[in-house]
Amino acid sequence: MSKALPKRSENYSEWYNEIVKRADLAENSAVRGCMVIKPYGFAIWEKMQRALDDMFKATGHQNAYFPLFVPRSFLEKEEEHAEGFAKECAVVTHYRLKGNPDGKGLVVDPNAKLEEELIIRPTSETVIWSAYKNWIQSWRDLPILINQWANVVRWEMRTRIFLRTAEFLWQEGHTAHATKEEAVEETYKILGIYADFVESWMAMPVVQGVKTPSERFAGAEDTYCIEALMQDGKALQAGTSHFLGQNFAKSFDVKFVNKENQLEYAWATSWGVSTRLMGALIMAHSDDNGLVLPPKLAPIQVVIVPIYKTAEDLSAISEKVGPILEALRATGISVKYDDSDNQRSGWKFAEYELKGVPIRLAIGKRDIENGTIEIARRDTLTKESRPVKFDEPSELVSSVSTLLNDIQESIYQKALRFREENTYVVDTWDEFKKKIEEGGFLMAHWDGTSETEAAIKEETKATIRCIPLISDEMAGECVYSGAPSAKRVLFARAY
Amino acid sequence: MSKALPKRSENYSEWYNEIVKRADLAENSAVRGCMVIKPYGFAIWEKMQRALDDMFKATGHQNAYFPLFVPRSFLEKEEEHAEGFAKECAVVTHYRLKGNPDGKGLVVDPNAKLEEELIIRPTSETVIWSAYKNWIQSWRDLPILINQWANVVRWEMRTRIFLRTAEFLWQEGHTAHATKEEAVEETYKILGIYADFVESWMAMPVVQGVKTPSERFAGAEDTYCIEALMQDGKALQAGTSHFLGQNFAKSFDVKFVNKENQLEYAWATSWGVSTRLMGALIMAHSDDNGLVLPPKLAPIQVVIVPIYKTAEDLSAISEKVGPILEALRATGISVKYDDSDNQRSGWKFAEYELKGVPIRLAIGKRDIENGTIEIARRDTLTKESRPVKFDEPSELVSSVSTLLNDIQESIYQKALRFREENTYVVDTWDEFKKKIEEGGFLMAHWDGTSETEAAIKEETKATIRCIPLISDEMAGECVYSGAPSAKRVLFARAY
Repeated sequence: MSKALPKRSENYSEWYNEIVKRADLAENSAVRGCMVIKPYGFAIWEKMQRALDDMFKATGHQNAYFPLFVPRSFLEKEEEHAEGFAKECAVVTHYRLKGNPDGKGLVVDPNAKLEEELIIRPTSETVIWSAYKNWIQSWRDLPILINQWANVVRWEMRTRIFLRTAEFLWQEGHTAHATKEEAVEETYKILGIYADFVESWMAMPVVQGVKTPSERFAGAEDTYCIEALMQDGKALQAGTSHFLGQNFAKSFDVKFVNKENQLEYAWATSWGVSTRLMGALIMAHSDDNGLVLPPKLAPIQVVIVPIYKTAEDLSAISEKVGPILEALRATGISVKYDDSDNQRSGWKFAEYELKGVPIRLAIGKRDIENGTIEIARRDTLTKESRPVKFDEPSELVSSVSTLLNDIQESIYQKALRFREENTYVVDTWDEFKKKIEEGGFLMAHWDGTSETEAAIKEETKATIRCIPLISDEMAGECVYSGAPSAKRVLFARAY
Repeated sequence: MSKALPKRSENYSEWYNEIVKRADLAENSAVRGCMVIKPYGFAIWEKMQRALDDMFKATGHQNAYFPLFVPRSFLEKEEEHAEGFAKECAVVTHYRLKGNPDGKGLVVDPNAKLEEELIIRPTSETVIWSAYKNWIQSWRDLPILINQWANVVRWEMRTRIFLRTAEFLWQEGHTAHATKEEAVEETYKILGIYADFVESWMAMPVVQGVKTPSERFAGAEDTYCIEALMQDGKALQAGTSHFLGQNFAKSFDVKFVNKENQLEYAWATSWGVSTRLMGALIMAHSDDNGLVLPPKLAPIQVVIVPIYKTAEDLSAISEKVGPILEALRATGISVKYDDSDNQRSGWKFAEYELKGVPIRLAIGKRDIENGTIEIARRDTLTKESRPVKFDEPSELVSSVSTLLNDIQESIYQKALRFREENTYVVDTWDEFKKKIEEGGFLMAHWDGTSETEAAIKEETKATIRCIPLISDEMAGECVYSGAPSAKRVLFARAY
């Protein structure tokens, strides 16, 4: 067994990096700011994709694919949008290399300069609305409910695997509607899907809310978000759903004839979640022994480890394991039997703990004699020996199945409890400054001005994560300025 | 109904473009050389992806994700590879835009020039082997069997939707092995998977073969391919599987300790199919009425169209259709009931023909009275009325199910027949020149020199598509030079 992970309590950041590395999820690539998502990490992402994709399709959305390149002139069309993304654009200026006339290697061919630069999409509103212009003439062409799974690039100076990388993977939905009401409804519907996915699949409780103007997506009228609390007390924005009003329709001149036979600009939404969710998943549940995965997203839900000394023992154990494997697979449970002989069982135990496999079954020679099996659960690190009929393992399968559900629920409840224990109602500025150092969600009154918001951020590094959609709506006084406030908002330091 | 499609016999190229457009598969984007894959086209691509992905996984491959960017110095490392791709590279030179100091809009920020240019991946051998260097130390780390689904960019001057676009979607497999034999075996295994997929799912017969040295992938020791014949007599390369030898291992210094405890370079393969397959699918089967889709890849396998005049009739028909819909869906058949009231049934018939829906069921008032339903098949454009029990449609479902299988097989057989009728054994140069003008596959002897290959291409635009893996191995004389030839090779003009 390699050396232990750093402890969360000692170095949370290093703990995160080491889990990413040692659970074989991803690594920094030789390409600045970009990551390699390794097979085990990608398998988790694929499960997320499949679940979300099913949810989008069940609500009438279709997938499509739009170009990677955004011509500079497209980006310029929506002013706020352009301003928001200009500083982090990867820019293609040439379309050819040639042999270096001064020696070895390749150089950019100066004769192959593009007339207009192409930006690698940081997001696709502009490219997509330039296409929608030709798709939308009448209210009968609406709504358009499209999603795409794609890579995007935002040139970040300080990167962190999954949480902030120059290139990342995401889905971006872009819808067009005939009325404002319908677009707003879509924005909420997607927010609900995101919250449902993150809570039911990732076992991560979220607060749904709306961003303040200063935290809005560049070009949006309103940005809705889901915010989760990580174990170090920092918030993580897990998904956003934007009501774009008619901004992009106006920039790209997308008008349609409405039912009243009048020309009108289309109404838009856009929404996305990204591989950032992988970072959230790791940080929300994992412990000092490694990754803890909710069963619904675990590439391997159950691992079976044989405990043996001789080849003969192994063969006897494998014979008993056969029907169990088969029965588990028949129920749709993803199971791995690790009978590799180049590592000891102790090493394997630690390895699957590190990788967050929810359930481990262990069988030794004595288990066969006694008709027992050891069941260990990753989330609580508890284990018990229980009777099993090796030739008719249906009872075992049913308890494994139940246990997977229990673990899913239990991980969620644990995260929820953690959030509740780390959410504070704060009424004075002193208390705010003290609490924010300890981490957690602070519910405090805010006077609604961007000046106060900026001052609080400047003094404490805390931002308004969102104005929660559900709140008690009690009026009060701003924790910073003392000015009147209609309701509490959610502050935290954030990733 | 809009005007008819151009006929294949009159303008094949225009016929293709119009099908792509009118079946709503894709369109040229405002971004030069890039396409927008529209929802209906993307749904077909998704079915292809799912089928291939399942086949890769069933043979032990895993998905992962590597960066979009290839640093220039990476591309330079493998000389032939660099030479092969340098001329079609999109090059990122800057990472920021800024407000135009001379007026409106944005300009490239000259202070944000990259020290080393980044190429948008035209293929990922270099990026992936730079990662593999850290993954491979011992024979125990091998094989590595990885695939990625990604977008790539090759700057093409003349583009054509699906067939040749600057950006396209594909999968690229990259494997590393401890022995040459194992890598070669992998190359063949993948070629077999490609052939199986294209034949069983796309209903398109292919010839498996190996490329001549001049047609090899840049950096490969051997390139294997599958070649299909389109209806205009041109060949289309539908997939390639490369044995890369130790070329990339040497360029990126990837050595491992083998079982004999000696340091050795790893052996590599790479392989890919792309959205080009969409173009092949369209051109292989479609007719002058529009798209013809093999049922296994059809987003809508069955469409049900009600024939009615009054709302009352429609409601009576819909009531009868309900149980049929339900029963078809329960069998896993993808079915659409088009009861929209803004188009007539004649328009709908033409529309679903254009979109290649394999089976159309039509029900009118008289059908209800008579207990009948009209079944039309897209591939043969034949239809028949048959009895149906509306309240217990299991017989109907079973015949629809059988018919879908029949259509799949029938489309394949038709394409196979077409290929057989258009494959010619050619023995003289005069015959070659005459036949190549008519189109089709020409099986002819070749002396094995790249000079002859180039001369034939120069004079006839025909290339050696491949040296077929299966052939009669009869020796003869080169159709061009008269020099000895060991076996016939496959010539054609190609996409």
